[in-house]
Amino acid sequence: MGDISRSVYMNLRNYPRVADRRVALEKELQVELKHIGSFTLDEAAAGTRNCENMIGAAQVPIGVAGPLRIKQQNYYIPLATTEGALVASVNRGCKAIGESGGASVDSYRVGATRGPVFKVANLAQNDALNGFLESHFEELQKLAKKTSHHLTLTKYFSRGLGRHRFVRFVFDTQDAMGMNMATIATSKMIQIIETKTGARCVSVAGNYDVDKKPSWLNVIEGRGIKAWAEVTLPAEVLQNTLKTSAPKMYETWLAKCMIGSAMSGSMGFNAHFANVIAAIFLATGQDLGHVGEGSCGITTAEIIQYTPGVNLAHTGGVQKESLYISVYLPDLMVGTVGGGTELATQKEALSILGIDGGNNGKNAQKFAEIIAGAVLAGEISLLASEAEGSLAQAHERLARGKA
Amino acid sequence: MGDISRSVYMNLRNYPRVADRRVALEKELQVELKHIGSFTLDEAAAGTRNCENMIGAAQVPIGVAGPLRIKQQNYYIPLATTEGALVASVNRGCKAIGESGGASVDSYRVGATRGPVFKVANLAQNDALNGFLESHFEELQKLAKKTSHHLTLTKYFSRGLGRHRFVRFVFDTQDAMGMNMATIATSKMIQIIETKTGARCVSVAGNYDVDKKPSWLNVIEGRGIKAWAEVTLPAEVLQNTLKTSAPKMYETWLAKCMIGSAMSGSMGFNAHFANVIAAIFLATGQDLGHVGEGSCGITTAEIIQYTPGVNLAHTGGVQKESLYISVYLPDLMVGTVGGGTELATQKEALSILGIDGGNNGKNAQKFAEIIAGAVLAGEISLLASEAEGSLAQAHERLARGKA
Amino acid sequence: MGDISRSVYMNLRNYPRVADRRVALEKELQVELKHIGSFTLDEAAAGTRNCENMIGAAQVPIGVAGPLRIKQQNYYIPLATTEGALVASVNRGCKAIGESGGASVDSYRVGATRGPVFKVANLAQNDALNGFLESHFEELQKLAKKTSHHLTLTKYFSRGLGRHRFVRFVFDTQDAMGMNMATIATSKMIQIIETKTGARCVSVAGNYDVDKKPSWLNVIEGRGIKAWAEVTLPAEVLQNTLKTSAPKMYETWLAKCMIGSAMSGSMGFNAHFANVIAAIFLATGQDLGHVGEGSCGITTAEIIQYTPGVNLAHTGGVQKESLYISVYLPDLMVGTVGGGTELATQKEALSILGIDGGNNGKNAQKFAEIIAGAVLAGEISLLASEAEGSLAQAHERLARGKA
Amino acid sequence: MGDISRSVYMNLRNYPRVADRRVALEKELQVELKHIGSFTLDEAAAGTRNCENMIGAAQVPIGVAGPLRIKQQNYYIPLATTEGALVASVNRGCKAIGESGGASVDSYRVGATRGPVFKVANLAQNDALNGFLESHFEELQKLAKKTSHHLTLTKYFSRGLGRHRFVRFVFDTQDAMGMNMATIATSKMIQIIETKTGARCVSVAGNYDVDKKPSWLNVIEGRGIKAWAEVTLPAEVLQNTLKTSAPKMYETWLAKCMIGSAMSGSMGFNAHFANVIAAIFLATGQDLGHVGEGSCGITTAEIIQYTPGVNLAHTGGVQKESLYISVYLPDLMVGTVGGGTELATQKEALSILGIDGGNNGKNAQKFAEIIAGAVLAGEISLLASEAEGSLAQAHERLARGKA
Repeated sequence: MGDISRSVYMNLRNYPRVADRRVALEKELQVELKHIGSFTLDEAAAGTRNCENMIGAAQVPIGVAGPLRIKQQNYYIPLATTEGALVASVNRGCKAIGESGGASVDSYRVGATRGPVFKVANLAQNDALNGFLESHFEELQKLAKKTSHHLTLTKYFSRGLGRHRFVRFVFDTQDAMGMNMATIATSKMIQIIETKTGARCVSVAGNYDVDKKPSWLNVIEGRGIKAWAEVTLPAEVLQNTLKTSAPKMYETWLAKCMIGSAMSGSMGFNAHFANVIAAIFLATGQDLGHVGEGSCGITTAEIIQYTPGVNLAHTGGVQKESLYISVYLPDLMVGTVGGGTELATQKEALSILGIDGGNNGKNAQKFAEIIAGAVLAGEISLLASEAEGSLAQAHERLARGKA
Repeated sequence: MGDISRSVYMNLRNYPRVADRRVALEKELQVELKHIGSFTLDEAAAGTRNCENMIGAAQVPIGVAGPLRIKQQNYYIPLATTEGALVASVNRGCKAIGESGGASVDSYRVGATRGPVFKVANLAQNDALNGFLESHFEELQKLAKKTSHHLTLTKYFSRGLGRHRFVRFVFDTQDAMGMNMATIATSKMIQIIETKTGARCVSVAGNYDVDKKPSWLNVIEGRGIKAWAEVTLPAEVLQNTLKTSAPKMYETWLAKCMIGSAMSGSMGFNAHFANVIAAIFLATGQDLGHVGEGSCGITTAEIIQYTPGVNLAHTGGVQKESLYISVYLPDLMVGTVGGGTELATQKEALSILGIDGGNNGKNAQKFAEIIAGAVLAGEISLLASEAEGSLAQAHERLARGKA
Repeated sequence: MGDISRSVYMNLRNYPRVADRRVALEKELQVELKHIGSFTLDEAAAGTRNCENMIGAAQVPIGVAGPLRIKQQNYYIPLATTEGALVASVNRGCKAIGESGGASVDSYRVGATRGPVFKVANLAQNDALNGFLESHFEELQKLAKKTSHHLTLTKYFSRGLGRHRFVRFVFDTQDAMGMNMATIATSKMIQIIETKTGARCVSVAGNYDVDKKPSWLNVIEGRGIKAWAEVTLPAEVLQNTLKTSAPKMYETWLAKCMIGSAMSGSMGFNAHFANVIAAIFLATGQDLGHVGEGSCGITTAEIIQYTPGVNLAHTGGVQKESLYISVYLPDLMVGTVGGGTELATQKEALSILGIDGGNNGKNAQKFAEIIAGAVLAGEISLLASEAEGSLAQAHERLARGKA
Repeated sequence: MGDISRSVYMNLRNYPRVADRRVALEKELQVELKHIGSFTLDEAAAGTRNCENMIGAAQVPIGVAGPLRIKQQNYYIPLATTEGALVASVNRGCKAIGESGGASVDSYRVGATRGPVFKVANLAQNDALNGFLESHFEELQKLAKKTSHHLTLTKYFSRGLGRHRFVRFVFDTQDAMGMNMATIATSKMIQIIETKTGARCVSVAGNYDVDKKPSWLNVIEGRGIKAWAEVTLPAEVLQNTLKTSAPKMYETWLAKCMIGSAMSGSMGFNAHFANVIAAIFLATGQDLGHVGEGSCGITTAEIIQYTPGVNLAHTGGVQKESLYISVYLPDLMVGTVGGGTELATQKEALSILGIDGGNNGKNAQKFAEIIAGAVLAGEISLLASEAEGSLAQAHERLARGKA
């Protein structure tokens, strides 16, 4: 291994089989790829549908957090991660949620989006192109439908400036994340648009989708499935399970998720959506390029006072305060069929959640709600830890009588 | 499987061993987790250091793209992905780079950041706290050093408003991504800051790190390692390997990566950094929560004209235009030691790049440069495809004589 | 004047008349306010409708740029400014536009927005509140109409998370900027929403309007009137009037308005929209709090090659390149009636444009298009200056043979 | 007036005097500009230094709010505005501040910034250019100093990508806002940089300043003068003067300034900074193009409980809660000399504040602190109004027993 191997040129296409390719690489680079070579995935399927030039597989530990109680149901959350403490942390959040009566969730199917960009000659043609899209929308819908009966073009959103027009086609893709079929449908529509209007498409994806980049457009308009989860943590749960209190945890939330994110110009007004999303996505075969989009969302918190007769937040006695906490995930690109979900370990992970395979879009939507619940558990646990840390360290200071 | 199982409560802590835990889950949920149970990772190590409540492992296909030529060296890029076409696409980009003489790269070690937030009584104390940080910086450096000899506090960045002060400690953590040691060092510093100033830390991480959320602060100040890569693609490579031309590819880049991203309020002015970063991160044991940060960056392009004597962009004859293209990744949180990099398949993947293990920070920095090169390859290939798509579809239109 | 006066407490309410108030202030602070006291505005009207505690008036020089040629019409643009060179710069841009055959413009009436925020008990009620808005929209429209026959509620946009729901009511307010009538109508609607749903409004304006703060929501959804302007500058105009060339100006635009704005996390992908908008707004009595919103927009440029038969950008001979340039202003909150437009000098400035007073919304829309044209003129002139600066300074360098 | 006049072409350069120009315009457009023609400004000075093609002046009513109590001093705030209720609102905020013992303020001189963008051949040269800036910084400082003894180059901030390098020079410009002298100094430095490095400047201002566009770079790094103000409003003041309570006002602040701004992708986490800033800027001759930058900032609030022994926020009895409120303005481009501050009415307005003219930078800094105090007054009054509105409308609802 070392500098010499780095200058070698080896054409991997000469090795059509996984093992041969791996062995050739091992020889050339003088490395051992024993573990990468140990896998049970269906080589033929994985090597053609999921990954070219396959040499083996990465193994990532899967842990289970839960049960996570949502709407009177228990879920065990498969999390594939290499970061110690994450599963334990989500697990503690699930425990707190369960002790608080479970989480409520909600979701809304926005749809997969694909956003071609067109060039035209001038503003007048730009306006005309928009007019064409508006007046021919039903025709485009029919065209899209022809490309897949799993796909429906539901709406579009378009903005023009100068000689460019950005379009954002929105598709219902049932239980699939759907970017591939969205792209195919969009390509077909582009042909007809170009033919009938003279506009020229300069990219089937013009970053108005917005695919795999954090963007305010996705946050504001939503993408994939939007999901919400909430729970009110009673004082006892805050104290016994989370080792903190409503005011402490609220203070940490406000400083971190609101003011801190505002100060840093962030799109994520949360504690660590990305950790939980990445771990569920990986376990269940989602496209990890969508982790960044998924991390854009907002956690809210509110101190709730149970004193009868007074129902305003932030007022009342110290002992009896509970904490309402919610998460909002406007941009979850997930699916339970297609892509990585068809791989063996990933399919099994989905089966743990009871949502593997297609179910008229219901599985994907349920999946998004479970993710929201798991993300909520993660927020609860981390914010409590951070608040608790501050509490622990406060002893010395308080002993000295300072604020 | 199904509704009944969803209401079951099973305490996973009753099962201390991976296999028992998995079997219990299989039984309760009536699912089969055969593949998840097939792994070669060191169970004891993975189950304690990387993942609690472990039940097995996810397998993700690894493909290899390359060779990627950087600074006269060839690299084979391990990409773990379930998205078909990604490896092939990066591979084509590598080919184009190689045919163009290889990529140039650069990098800069910003450092891992951890950002505690403090509460004080008022603006005067807020200013005093900042003064304390400034005057006691060397003391804090010594304190940090005591927590690990792999870690050095190099600088801090701080902003206050009202009763909050946000601090961003920056650490050199050699070849480790370093968030764990950064957190430990920060906790120690917090104690001394609280004791000596009376300020109260309300979170060891106040979203001024900014960890695992896309943020302008990270883009502007940088985080982890900043990396750049560039190449100039000659007309022949554009035509033969990428099936496009400099003007076409430039037009797609401008519309998508610049105007499209501006229109959508994105932090990613690129084609698809996230795809390549997610695949390398997964293969090599990086923290996938950092994919979103990594996807914030900028691709630039410029048409270069070879006509002797005239060296201005965008001028000159059609046939001889080459395309300069570069990527800028301001926020790469990567390492070659610690965390997921210690797992067997991940370590093997790093060995393919010749950078497994520690090397006084040089391995991590080299890794960032290789990532930049691979991301460049991904940008080249996708932008060419998108430009080419438009070209293909233009036939019909052009036949009718429209612009 | 000085420290003593600074500690004085004077109740301005004791002085009901402008002159008395001013004299009292002059006496207390030992200052002379002779010029502030010299004004011809109708004191009674201005002092009640526009400004409480009035002591006089600020005088700001008005210059005229133009004629600005739009759609075969000439306009003289009144610009109130204290920044030398601005009028001259816009004037040069107008000249270039005129020599290029005039600007084309377009516009779209989005409408004034007011965005109340409601609190509810939980996600279920949050969803129910949205359902109420949807099912009672016509009722709300009727209610809004009752508050003013100049106002029509045209649509709404709403997003909920946790216990908060943000609503963005959109109104057609004809020729008025309309925030006052939008607020009144919104207050009425809030009453009925609170009564019928139990939701509680915690602010009539919840920063989802978004009023007077730069925001991606306004950029993406638009606010007030959206406007566009474009022109193609022939090589001769670029050379003779603007002292630059298409490639030079294009290069400056790309570096500054695209890459520079991307690097700085800006919402303004332009050269200096704010300067021109502030000057027109001030001259014509617009609300200057809206200058920041107006500065969010995008300038695009493209090199156009006239060679017959080839119509691709960026290809072809040096001498004959022209430059297409456009501006996009998604967030222009302007009016020609009400507020500051009723003051004497402001009304006169509108009359210079031929659009003072109401005209079924047509005057406001025409006004937005003129502003877009003037902003285009400003962009052209500044970008040319900046490109020209580089050209001038390049002599020394070029003489030494460097790139 | 009307369509005919719109097609007229009149060369304003034919009329060298203000009155002649105005009369010509009146005649051509058949409009009367009597009020615009009535002004007391020094025509010769204004028409050359501040405004080309001058035809007269806009008059904008000035009202006075205050006294605003800051650090035991009283200030009367001149506000030029056409928006009724603004002066009254700020006035009420000033009253509340005064009754609460006055505001505390702080400020920090960041400096005026000018940001040229350079082109180089590749990454290596890009790095070399940065090295040049670093190693020649003292030389550049000396060069800058030669252009004006009122200006000092204090630091620079630079970022490169691909073939572009963006520089942000930071200058101390004493009591001047300073953009003009910063531009002149930057031009001189550009010459030497180009000569010595071969880099080519493509714009003296590359939107890395960032001048007159809202940007995260300015928010994070600061621009001009950063200023803070704070006050704690006792329960009595909240009830009697502001007609609200701490919990109500806090709830409005959180929903609007935090969550609402996060939801809308705003850079302004405040209620209406822009209104107050625009009015003070206009009255005192500041550059109104900077209003948008000034509107980027954060208001924070916190409920404070006076119960002895317990000093945590959000806990305790209803009656005794006070509200801590602060404003943070990271980007105030202001001055007390030069530009519009030299005009008669503007100079008089500055004299009301006791800060007209130069004073080694102290006047500008004091001005920024007064602006922060006035902005704080504006925030207090508007947030109270919005909270109060909700209170008033709650009667009906509360009578029906709903939350």
